Amino acid sequence: MTVARLNSLTASLRTSNLDAVILNPGPTLKYLSGLNFHLMERPVVLFVAPDQDPVLVLPELELPKVNLFPYKVQAFAYGENPSEWENAFRKASQALRLDGKRIGVEPRQLRLLEFRHVKAGAPEADFPDATDVLAGLRLRKDKTEVDAIRKAVHIAQSALEATIPQIKIGMTEKELSSELVMQLLKHGSESEIPFAPIVSAGPNSANPHASPTERKLQAGDLLVVDWLA
Amino acid sequence: MTVARLNSLTASLRTSNLDAVILNPGPTLKYLSGLNFHLMERPVVLFVAPDQDPVLVLPELELPKVNLFPYKVQAFAYGENPSEWENAFRKASQALRLDGKRIGVEPRQLRLLEFRHVKAGAPEADFPDATDVLAGLRLRKDKTEVDAIRKAVHIAQSALEATIPQIKIGMTEKELSSELVMQLLKHGSESEIPFAPIVSAGPNSANPHASPTERKLQAGDLLVVDWLA
Repeated sequence: MTVARLNSLTASLRTSNLDAVILNPGPTLKYLSGLNFHLMERPVVLFVAPDQDPVLVLPELELPKVNLFPYKVQAFAYGENPSEWENAFRKASQALRLDGKRIGVEPRQLRLLEFRHVKAGAPEADFPDATDVLAGLRLRKDKTEVDAIRKAVHIAQSALEATIPQIKIGMTEKELSSELVMQLLKHGSESEIPFAPIVSAGPNSANPHASPTERKLQAGDLLVVDWLA
Repeated sequence: MTVARLNSLTASLRTSNLDAVILNPGPTLKYLSGLNFHLMERPVVLFVAPDQDPVLVLPELELPKVNLFPYKVQAFAYGENPSEWENAFRKASQALRLDGKRIGVEPRQLRLLEFRHVKAGAPEADFPDATDVLAGLRLRKDKTEVDAIRKAVHIAQSALEATIPQIKIGMTEKELSSELVMQLLKHGSESEIPFAPIVSAGPNSANPHASPTERKLQAGDLLVVDWLA
């Protein structure tokens, strides 16, 4: 499935006047590889360009993951000394002949950590926003994706239904949020949930991106729960 | 407590040849404000410069959070149209007279989304890496911080002790990871844990940053658990 997604992406690059895109750990990298990489203190970047195997820059200690990719990737791994990063990124850009080209980025996901290293390896490149190109790949869901969404909705709904009877005056927003996460896990959510539930009551409920607090639920509170499985 | 941290930071800026630092949602912003902001599709940036109230750029819908800050902040809020972002960031830089100055950044946390907007508002500024300056603030823990670390270690240890008797041949890495998260929550962890536990067995245990899979535990497996409360 991820092979078809990769092929869609390279076709989109051609029609979008992009020579490549770069992806760091996050939803798009997972979408295109099926693999989980963590955002961490070391940079990991996948370079995707048409007509060539994708290129991956990563730490040596993550090399076993290269074999888990569903397609061939060229890996440039670096050792424990950060002074080696520069060379790995330069080799990656050279392998795909990217200097002076248009390399699409995801500004909402790409950190300065990865961006500065990619740019140092391709100093004459442009880095246009590729958010819409990448979002376009996911606009139309296939059956597997629709089934996965239905499953997630079912888990989220069942978890909420199991949590509601346990809501009591005097419990804190944090306690209620923890209970909801436990119910999500019991009902089949993976341990890495998309975001920790927003549970906010009373005055806190006016803040749409509140984090749960130690405030206890009171009679008459408006209670907001915003959650995903 | 966060007021003292803010004062330490501004003192460090003076000795580090930095005119300011910018922070987006993440551990340092929480450390310096006590508040949770989510990394999302809209940019949120705190500008800290000596001898001036910090400046916060944020969406209007998050404005209620400004009053939760433990010190006075100047807020520049933008509305629902992303075309307003540019103006809010320009006003923020002007309020602190940052153009042409040295604005420290956290490359491991700052996204291109925030960076490009800050840069557009202060096009002649330099953006040196302030990771070490910010890490230096946290090198020496005070009693409250040591107590919090002890509490987190206690929760993590108790959760593992409660999980170990439930480990059985035939359960999957994902099931074990979910069980550990439930035990973390039962033992007092907040619902937003620092990272989802790494649980990997057999061949997967050779990958230091593995994500839990559907593979079932087998007799003789080496089992790796890497987790925090």
